[in-house]
Amino acid sequence: MSAGTEAGALLRAEIAEQPEVWRAVMRDQRATLEAAAGAIRAAHPELLVLIARGTSDHAAMFAQYYAQVRLGIPAMLATPSAVTAYDAAVTYPRSVAIAISQSGASPDLLATVASVKADGVPVIAVTNTLDSPLASAGDLLVPLHAGPELSVAATKTYTATLLTLLVMIGLAAGDSWEDWEARVAELADQAQDLLAPETLPAGLVDAFVETSHVMVVGRGYSMASAREGALKLTETNSVPASGWSSADATHGPLGQVRPGALVFVLTAGEVTRPAVETFAAAAAGLGGTIVAVGRAVEGAAFTIPLPERADAELPLLEAIPFQLLALVGALRRGVDPDRPAGLAKVTRTS
Amino acid sequence: MSAGTEAGALLRAEIAEQPEVWRAVMRDQRATLEAAAGAIRAAHPELLVLIARGTSDHAAMFAQYYAQVRLGIPAMLATPSAVTAYDAAVTYPRSVAIAISQSGASPDLLATVASVKADGVPVIAVTNTLDSPLASAGDLLVPLHAGPELSVAATKTYTATLLTLLVMIGLAAGDSWEDWEARVAELADQAQDLLAPETLPAGLVDAFVETSHVMVVGRGYSMASAREGALKLTETNSVPASGWSSADATHGPLGQVRPGALVFVLTAGEVTRPAVETFAAAAAGLGGTIVAVGRAVEGAAFTIPLPERADAELPLLEAIPFQLLALVGALRRGVDPDRPAGLAKVTRTS
Repeated sequence: MSAGTEAGALLRAEIAEQPEVWRAVMRDQRATLEAAAGAIRAAHPELLVLIARGTSDHAAMFAQYYAQVRLGIPAMLATPSAVTAYDAAVTYPRSVAIAISQSGASPDLLATVASVKADGVPVIAVTNTLDSPLASAGDLLVPLHAGPELSVAATKTYTATLLTLLVMIGLAAGDSWEDWEARVAELADQAQDLLAPETLPAGLVDAFVETSHVMVVGRGYSMASAREGALKLTETNSVPASGWSSADATHGPLGQVRPGALVFVLTAGEVTRPAVETFAAAAAGLGGTIVAVGRAVEGAAFTIPLPERADAELPLLEAIPFQLLALVGALRRGVDPDRPAGLAKVTRTS
Repeated sequence: MSAGTEAGALLRAEIAEQPEVWRAVMRDQRATLEAAAGAIRAAHPELLVLIARGTSDHAAMFAQYYAQVRLGIPAMLATPSAVTAYDAAVTYPRSVAIAISQSGASPDLLATVASVKADGVPVIAVTNTLDSPLASAGDLLVPLHAGPELSVAATKTYTATLLTLLVMIGLAAGDSWEDWEARVAELADQAQDLLAPETLPAGLVDAFVETSHVMVVGRGYSMASAREGALKLTETNSVPASGWSSADATHGPLGQVRPGALVFVLTAGEVTRPAVETFAAAAAGLGGTIVAVGRAVEGAAFTIPLPERADAELPLLEAIPFQLLALVGALRRGVDPDRPAGLAKVTRTS
């Protein structure tokens, strides 16, 4: 594939495709998403079980919050090792499971799917790989249709998963399709504006290449963005990075902030902003270089502004600056983000 | 308090108290633990909800696995922000909640407790602070009785919480008190042997003080140990550290391993060892300095041997080497681990 010959060409192309992938979800997936939402409603679940690993688990983390808020039922992240390592045989209350994997082939995810199915729990499979074991294991298949993702770092499949879960849960809560269509159209346009690597503030790439380590801190819906943002940077740039909830980070994890640390704070979410700002002030006081993603905060060295959106829609936009920095930072370091040392995409999407 | 005058004196003393705290739990808490286990059994719960933050959340993470395996019901970690930020009103199936906080005073934990109680879910409160709001909010109070914990890093309250949850869930699953009495007596003796700072391998403290960053990797029951071990090191030594499940770490997070990184792998657990060893081999191949905690692995620069125990009991012992390294490392760096820069224990225990 000729796009793969230039360092970072795959990642660059896959980041850029995102607005169009989101538009395609809304153009092509209405029937599937309405069927999934209808299946959730019809099951009258008392519990939502989210089954995922890695980047997909970050999307699941978002869905855990959003489902509880919108559907008023508890939502949990499954722990695959309970099944694969300790043979847990769990009896669920009336539940629905959503299993998420871009490749659809992770063995412990499939074992967990088999275990919930054995207890009679219906499974909605969300995957980018239509001929995968997960696609056939689900009672209902929701394809991501993001197209092949060939770079090792997941980008467009992550935001396509976020969007799929957001709309599916929103529809299950009674939102209208037309409302989501309008909201996603706006989001896609706003994402387009965020996409140029030049939108990163001058000096941020230098600070990133020189930093000893990175923290990313958010809360609520944006905790997923914190975890996923840190993962993008660490897997492509070999920089130590970790993502935290501001509620936890303000205690022990704050200990790692010192001069030379680059600390991203996700400040776009309206209701979570005060807690994140409190963390940012403490981190600035310890000498960390603060990067505000969303709204400017006092003491921030850099700000990446994001447009105003409902808090639950922000994770779609928050992902993008970290993807861009992963790309541009790796190129500045002289490494190919499409082929990070030691990492491989386990199963290629198709 | 005179013990506080020498750097690290509080932390040193609190680490050393652990075997005696565990023995005291088994000596004094039989009635309380049997009452809690009986309450869990009597409720016939279809879901266990664990409510915690920070270090207590790591103990909850262990309990999430152990409860699913032993009780055969789903167990979830609550997401306090769903309540405090987004006003989620969740209707639970027949559930029992366990709320865990050494201080018993964290506002968002208390808000989450109030929200599950409002839905009629009985709450078992596990706290070290008997006059705390959490102690009075619970339907049933299980005191940790660990004594005052004055150093900022939680140590004895963490392992006392692990022990409390282990025995409570074991009893609820039908284990006999006498069996646990014998097992904890052995564990306490084995912990005593691990306690001397001299038990850390020669050269490990040097490697820790010189490292750029730390990863701690475990799986299943020991994922809690990975997260908590990383937290102890980061909050006392200002070193970037993060804890991971080997299932996730083998993909993206492996990207941060490079020469200069110190990578702890938790290899004591029998059924999870193969997955952790696979990660260790990959990390060694990328030039990380591997520290095996449990069993030696090929390519490890250091090994901290742990005695053979049932996998579910290992987290009690796995915590100790990280506590010791937190203490000794900070002293070697010339900082006081009892007073890390920028951190405070929100509420003192009493």
